[in-house]
Amino acid sequence: MRFFSDNAAATHPKVIEAIAQANRLDTAYDGDEWSRRLDGAFSDLFGRDVRALWVTTGTVANCLALAALCPAYGAILCHKDAHIENDEAGAPGFFTAGAKLTLLDGEGAKIAPDAVSAACDRVRKDVHQVQPAAISITNATEYGLAYRAEEVAALGQAAKARGLGFHMDGARLANALASTGESLADVTWRAGLDALSFGFVKNGGLNAEALILFRTELADEIAIRRKRAGHLLSKGRYLAAQLLAMLDGDLWLDNARAANAVAQTLAQAAPERLVYPVQANEIFLKASADEAAHLRSQGFDFYDWAPGEIRLVTSWDQQGEAVERLAAAIAAL
Amino acid sequence: MRFFSDNAAATHPKVIEAIAQANRLDTAYDGDEWSRRLDGAFSDLFGRDVRALWVTTGTVANCLALAALCPAYGAILCHKDAHIENDEAGAPGFFTAGAKLTLLDGEGAKIAPDAVSAACDRVRKDVHQVQPAAISITNATEYGLAYRAEEVAALGQAAKARGLGFHMDGARLANALASTGESLADVTWRAGLDALSFGFVKNGGLNAEALILFRTELADEIAIRRKRAGHLLSKGRYLAAQLLAMLDGDLWLDNARAANAVAQTLAQAAPERLVYPVQANEIFLKASADEAAHLRSQGFDFYDWAPGEIRLVTSWDQQGEAVERLAAAIAAL
Amino acid sequence: MRFFSDNAAATHPKVIEAIAQANRLDTAYDGDEWSRRLDGAFSDLFGRDVRALWVTTGTVANCLALAALCPAYGAILCHKDAHIENDEAGAPGFFTAGAKLTLLDGEGAKIAPDAVSAACDRVRKDVHQVQPAAISITNATEYGLAYRAEEVAALGQAAKARGLGFHMDGARLANALASTGESLADVTWRAGLDALSFGFVKNGGLNAEALILFRTELADEIAIRRKRAGHLLSKGRYLAAQLLAMLDGDLWLDNARAANAVAQTLAQAAPERLVYPVQANEIFLKASADEAAHLRSQGFDFYDWAPGEIRLVTSWDQQGEAVERLAAAIAAL
Amino acid sequence: MRFFSDNAAATHPKVIEAIAQANRLDTAYDGDEWSRRLDGAFSDLFGRDVRALWVTTGTVANCLALAALCPAYGAILCHKDAHIENDEAGAPGFFTAGAKLTLLDGEGAKIAPDAVSAACDRVRKDVHQVQPAAISITNATEYGLAYRAEEVAALGQAAKARGLGFHMDGARLANALASTGESLADVTWRAGLDALSFGFVKNGGLNAEALILFRTELADEIAIRRKRAGHLLSKGRYLAAQLLAMLDGDLWLDNARAANAVAQTLAQAAPERLVYPVQANEIFLKASADEAAHLRSQGFDFYDWAPGEIRLVTSWDQQGEAVERLAAAIAAL
Repeated sequence: MRFFSDNAAATHPKVIEAIAQANRLDTAYDGDEWSRRLDGAFSDLFGRDVRALWVTTGTVANCLALAALCPAYGAILCHKDAHIENDEAGAPGFFTAGAKLTLLDGEGAKIAPDAVSAACDRVRKDVHQVQPAAISITNATEYGLAYRAEEVAALGQAAKARGLGFHMDGARLANALASTGESLADVTWRAGLDALSFGFVKNGGLNAEALILFRTELADEIAIRRKRAGHLLSKGRYLAAQLLAMLDGDLWLDNARAANAVAQTLAQAAPERLVYPVQANEIFLKASADEAAHLRSQGFDFYDWAPGEIRLVTSWDQQGEAVERLAAAIAAL
Repeated sequence: MRFFSDNAAATHPKVIEAIAQANRLDTAYDGDEWSRRLDGAFSDLFGRDVRALWVTTGTVANCLALAALCPAYGAILCHKDAHIENDEAGAPGFFTAGAKLTLLDGEGAKIAPDAVSAACDRVRKDVHQVQPAAISITNATEYGLAYRAEEVAALGQAAKARGLGFHMDGARLANALASTGESLADVTWRAGLDALSFGFVKNGGLNAEALILFRTELADEIAIRRKRAGHLLSKGRYLAAQLLAMLDGDLWLDNARAANAVAQTLAQAAPERLVYPVQANEIFLKASADEAAHLRSQGFDFYDWAPGEIRLVTSWDQQGEAVERLAAAIAAL
Repeated sequence: MRFFSDNAAATHPKVIEAIAQANRLDTAYDGDEWSRRLDGAFSDLFGRDVRALWVTTGTVANCLALAALCPAYGAILCHKDAHIENDEAGAPGFFTAGAKLTLLDGEGAKIAPDAVSAACDRVRKDVHQVQPAAISITNATEYGLAYRAEEVAALGQAAKARGLGFHMDGARLANALASTGESLADVTWRAGLDALSFGFVKNGGLNAEALILFRTELADEIAIRRKRAGHLLSKGRYLAAQLLAMLDGDLWLDNARAANAVAQTLAQAAPERLVYPVQANEIFLKASADEAAHLRSQGFDFYDWAPGEIRLVTSWDQQGEAVERLAAAIAAL
Repeated sequence: MRFFSDNAAATHPKVIEAIAQANRLDTAYDGDEWSRRLDGAFSDLFGRDVRALWVTTGTVANCLALAALCPAYGAILCHKDAHIENDEAGAPGFFTAGAKLTLLDGEGAKIAPDAVSAACDRVRKDVHQVQPAAISITNATEYGLAYRAEEVAALGQAAKARGLGFHMDGARLANALASTGESLADVTWRAGLDALSFGFVKNGGLNAEALILFRTELADEIAIRRKRAGHLLSKGRYLAAQLLAMLDGDLWLDNARAANAVAQTLAQAAPERLVYPVQANEIFLKASADEAAHLRSQGFDFYDWAPGEIRLVTSWDQQGEAVERLAAAIAAL
């Protein structure tokens, strides 16, 4: 069974069904009925006016937001293990036309206001050094930790104090919220976010992500950039329909809860092996190469994260006997 | 009834079905079973080795190819009415980091070898002027004309003689081929093409296009650029499955024939109004503003192309009574 | 004798002397005493507050201004024969990260408000087409015509009405003004310019040009872009000193008058051969290949502009007997 | 007296004189007699064929080289304190269209082959991570250390083994060589360098630096990029003449020796305060804020590098009594 990554998990049947139901002619691009409902649907969800654009990947969601928040000659502060730094092929450099990622340290891939301040203070205020323009955080982090609303708010205040844009890569935001039980509004716009990459693909979607703009005046520029990057699909209704299906009845939250529950089951099998607390759907375990091989020999697939460390990722569609077997196999190592 | 554009037409049921059937976990990105079959399936279709990458839009297919064929400091020769010049929000400039589009004239949005030669000869061979690096043509053209294989081959020879890359935007290549009856191989790689944006979305697909590389050594660089542009979807199998469904039993050709047949029905309704011969699925008609309004009042939707000129586009799913009614309405103007 | 281009003319002795006098240690970059005088000196010259930055070429002056006035996803309207289009190796594409040059027609490389309006009106207001963001004109034009203040003002009004930035490439502005006798203020900021590339190198300078910002709030961003483009020289005083020497006692205007006077002498030698009126220091003459060869055989060097057409450019340091001989040779053709 | 930076030092009189002597009309850009001598003069100096282009700043020399050695989707390995990372306003990102700087640690701003290997090994060979394409080192380093030829050669071998381009920022290469006494050839092309930014401005030049290409086939592309970046000055002879004057009679080496001798005098005044060995013309001293203030009160100017640390930079034109006074003042702290 595969615990390699949630990014290849199956699509929820309701999403497939929504696609099939959207299969009739409508206006092209994002002029169709489904796409035109997005702003409203997400505004309802967030409890305030937002602009919501569909895109097909988290990478483009992140980079469209960053290109709007940071000029080519600016810097984006992020954790040194951030997805935008390590796993997007330099896409932020492409979309911003060469902006710099300034890398911060922080336990569990979280960044703290102190690290932001220190990074900003190191930069001379002259034309020779690249001036910080934005902060980007990942929630849940690359190590599966969930930011609490108050942590995000502290960063939001730091951003505001220094005139920085503030973006969240929420590829697994659903999992983080399902874990903390906090409100979507509290951990996003009330905490000072300008833009959010709201992930659905890892959480049961097929290929639709949402880029949410709390600074709604950025949406028009970003819509141009989306087209210019080849990301304005001509039959946008099939993306919008996916997002609406995920919001319907809080399917996004149910799916995240399901994935998190599996993660907890696995975590509790060997709490002493955990590298980080499990606050979403990723489990980092200490495991020797032999132990990893032993698990694989029993049919389990996962990622060798680092020497002596493996990563398991759970998804909404994993449950039942296979999970129990893996938990037992971990406990038995 | 809507004759506005084929880019918003419904998706063929077999494509929807293929998506549903691909709904099981597999390797992420393009490591899945469907994606791994693409090179072979398209190589069979073209009768030679090709590399085939799925993408979600024609714009990104065009621009990834152009970025590989033209350096930032080069120029791409294209028709002044080309889609890459007029309808892609400057995407070629974004993907190439600033390359120039050099615009050529030519009847019906076709370009001829003479125009290429003249454009190249106008450029001094020094560092002050931007040197041509590639040619891009659209087939069928923006005015619905189909290039004959020998026309493409003549351009291919011009490209080769001057060391230029050669790309075809084939958003409606299926329609062109269904019209000329020529072979796919003859009008593409045998004519000297390096890269082809092979369109499926306008032709019954949902959101998968194919970028075909006859210079197969470009594929690895382009795969990097695809990721870097946020276009490497994590569940690529749903795109690959669409393409395979379109190739299966030559569905792509059947769909194009169906759309072309509708176009012919409409064209024959008022041959004296045709601005261009109808060689694919687009019909440009002379029609006064009053005439256009009269058609609209009967429930037909289309594009006001220019003063006194309207554009109708047909698609695979249009047939029967509505088409007959439109033909009659046109004839009756 | 060489009438090929003013861009290689000798440097005025006062400029060389100013460089020698600046040869003592001072603050690096633009913190030195000479550089700090520029804003004031140019503000005096223009009769209002301006910001003035030294740069080493007209290309970078033009492109820094355009990058500040036009986003990567915008278009710059210019004449099809503009220097930025034809002779800067695509530099505007590089500095703007891919903005588009939209090319306008116009007699003698001048553009008129009507052409601007037509170009803007052709663009649909959607995300598919590149929206105009700025106008750039060249004065004197590439064919040696001088814009009158009222012509520039009409363009300035068009720019304002449509929210476009407005830039002048003034590589030969001195010659234009020396010809029309109009005021520097009238033909620049009073006519609505946002930014001016004020040329000195063709006019007796060594390697210092001035970028003048009437929208002074752009200067800080442009100073960053200047550094980022490798154009912030560490010993800026040698550039600033050149500019101050050119302003001192209106040397810039004297030099331009001298070059223009030579041009008039040559123009009057064969008025019937003139392709354009001579309003600055460039003369375009009808001359067959044989006639051109005959002139060359007498020791005169110039540019073959087009079949049957030659270009002569005069400079501040040409006078006396050689000019008389050339005038006689032209008259004798 | 000013020990702030060598980048603002006076220009050597022979350089000023060379500029004055070049003050006659010649071909524009780099077609003049002086510019055409550069390839030969530098080939003689290096003892092999090289291509040599004048530029006006070290930043553009570095970035033109890096843009030729690293694609937009590649990474350049450099020290975390490298000038290209910290003091060029993100210019490498601009010139490469978004390439990444991967930052390495290393004592005294030197990088070692082990650090290169470790950085490369950390990168997965897939499309998600940015693949290393080039190494850039600074010699003398940002902390005034001189690379030995064998150290550079070891990096050159690492570069070759991994298919990486290899560039040296030699803003103070003259000082490094004057210190080690090694040969220019040994520490550059014999050690595997592809390109060298050869600094002259800090060493008595006015505003001419040389970009030296050992991979001579890169020169034509770089010449285009130089123009495209606005760096092709129209009167290039004044830059070429400076470089030729610096090479004449090894003035570049004499100047570096003079600057280094001053540095040694100061270093020997308080060897126990040295943060790094003094191997060029920079001295990093431990000094409290009070001590720094005390030195300043005696008329000496320098840079506060870090808490408890100051930087003094010497130049070719410093000598005699002021140096003695500063040495005494340091010794007396």
